[in-house]
Amino acid sequence: MRRLVGIHAVSAALRSARASGRRLDRVVVARGARNTRLRPLIDECRRIGIPVRFEPRSVLQRLAGTKAHQNVVGIAAAAGYRTLDGILSHEEESSTIVVLDSVQDPHNLGAIIRTSEAAGATAAVIPERRSAGLSEATTKAAAGALESLPVVRAKNLGRALDRLKEAGFWLYGLDAAADADYDAIEYADHCCLVMGSEGRGLRAKVSERCDFHVRIPLSGRVESLNVSVAAGIALFEVNRQRRARLRDTD
Amino acid sequence: MRRLVGIHAVSAALRSARASGRRLDRVVVARGARNTRLRPLIDECRRIGIPVRFEPRSVLQRLAGTKAHQNVVGIAAAAGYRTLDGILSHEEESSTIVVLDSVQDPHNLGAIIRTSEAAGATAAVIPERRSAGLSEATTKAAAGALESLPVVRAKNLGRALDRLKEAGFWLYGLDAAADADYDAIEYADHCCLVMGSEGRGLRAKVSERCDFHVRIPLSGRVESLNVSVAAGIALFEVNRQRRARLRDTD
Repeated sequence: MRRLVGIHAVSAALRSARASGRRLDRVVVARGARNTRLRPLIDECRRIGIPVRFEPRSVLQRLAGTKAHQNVVGIAAAAGYRTLDGILSHEEESSTIVVLDSVQDPHNLGAIIRTSEAAGATAAVIPERRSAGLSEATTKAAAGALESLPVVRAKNLGRALDRLKEAGFWLYGLDAAADADYDAIEYADHCCLVMGSEGRGLRAKVSERCDFHVRIPLSGRVESLNVSVAAGIALFEVNRQRRARLRDTD
Repeated sequence: MRRLVGIHAVSAALRSARASGRRLDRVVVARGARNTRLRPLIDECRRIGIPVRFEPRSVLQRLAGTKAHQNVVGIAAAAGYRTLDGILSHEEESSTIVVLDSVQDPHNLGAIIRTSEAAGATAAVIPERRSAGLSEATTKAAAGALESLPVVRAKNLGRALDRLKEAGFWLYGLDAAADADYDAIEYADHCCLVMGSEGRGLRAKVSERCDFHVRIPLSGRVESLNVSVAAGIALFEVNRQRRARLRDTD
């Protein structure tokens, strides 16, 4: 978790956010602060979709580790985001990419990143809005996986899915209403597992781009699994099939 | 979550706890309370291993929903515990029982109960000590699964495992150091999945009772999975094999 203290540092981070991919996670402004130079900074955050939170000065002082914070502290993600083109520039024989449409809970996001890395996935893709980000809570739940699993934050998830299809990936949407069981199909060497939010599932514009829809068949009375558990089950089915194929070709 | 308010109600619950299986989760006592009838009640809690917490009177009033709480409120688990003999009295053609050795986090425990129910498991077994119980947080994370999945709280987990073996169950311990992959063996129709705590894994006296040890092979750099994710992967492998066998015999 990087902290940018003061108007200059936060403004610079806002300017370079697009170029560096190291977006600010949020900007914290002192409640009741009347600095005229803060106004354009807040406007810019709103324009590019970075959340602004108003907190007492004591909170800013704690975040900044100093009183000289000029009433503004920017919080950068602990790990940087990567670009989809950067990910796709490495040609690999097989690759699994996890696409998470609007997972809101940082513990779930972190747990999925951890499981994805452990299952040998290549990257995770999350949308810029309506999603938890790489916050401290996410980083903690990811248990070190962010050191090696790149995460892409897509401005437009639909377009990112189109780009993945162009790059030769097949898209498998996890959907409780699907007809096919997740373990009844063979996953392509280049596959994306597309998962929805806790509760709402896939949005239409995401779902309609999927080549296949699969469900995890539930044998009890509960209606759904926790999204990070469902992700684990699907990821390790892909992993299981891939290991089985490697054994067969040996 | 049931609340027992006052000395009489809490004493009665302590007396009947063993017989009914509806153990108290904890007893909350007003800080600084000088009621002489509270002393033996606190002693009894400590003797039978029910946690006692000392809180301000305002907390007791909130818990009790009244000022007439006599400085003591008992918190009973939202769902009752069941006995192992009760579970084993139902003969079933196939049965999966999940044994959780010292899962401490109520969210993990709840998530595992939710996944177990969804995977068609028959019951979960947890130890009386060193484990999260059926608290409010666990119940919430279980998302309704406690309505249909019985949970046994075993005084001695080693003895419970022996009892399960006598009843014809094969015990599969999940263990990162195992040689066999979890998906490379065939699970018996009567099987127990035995899982350890977050971080420490299986205790020796639990591990040595397992008939098989299996591991989930990790393909990345992270060293372990979240315990509820690991449970989901193993439970759905058992479920997958069982469904495949049913298809083959059809």
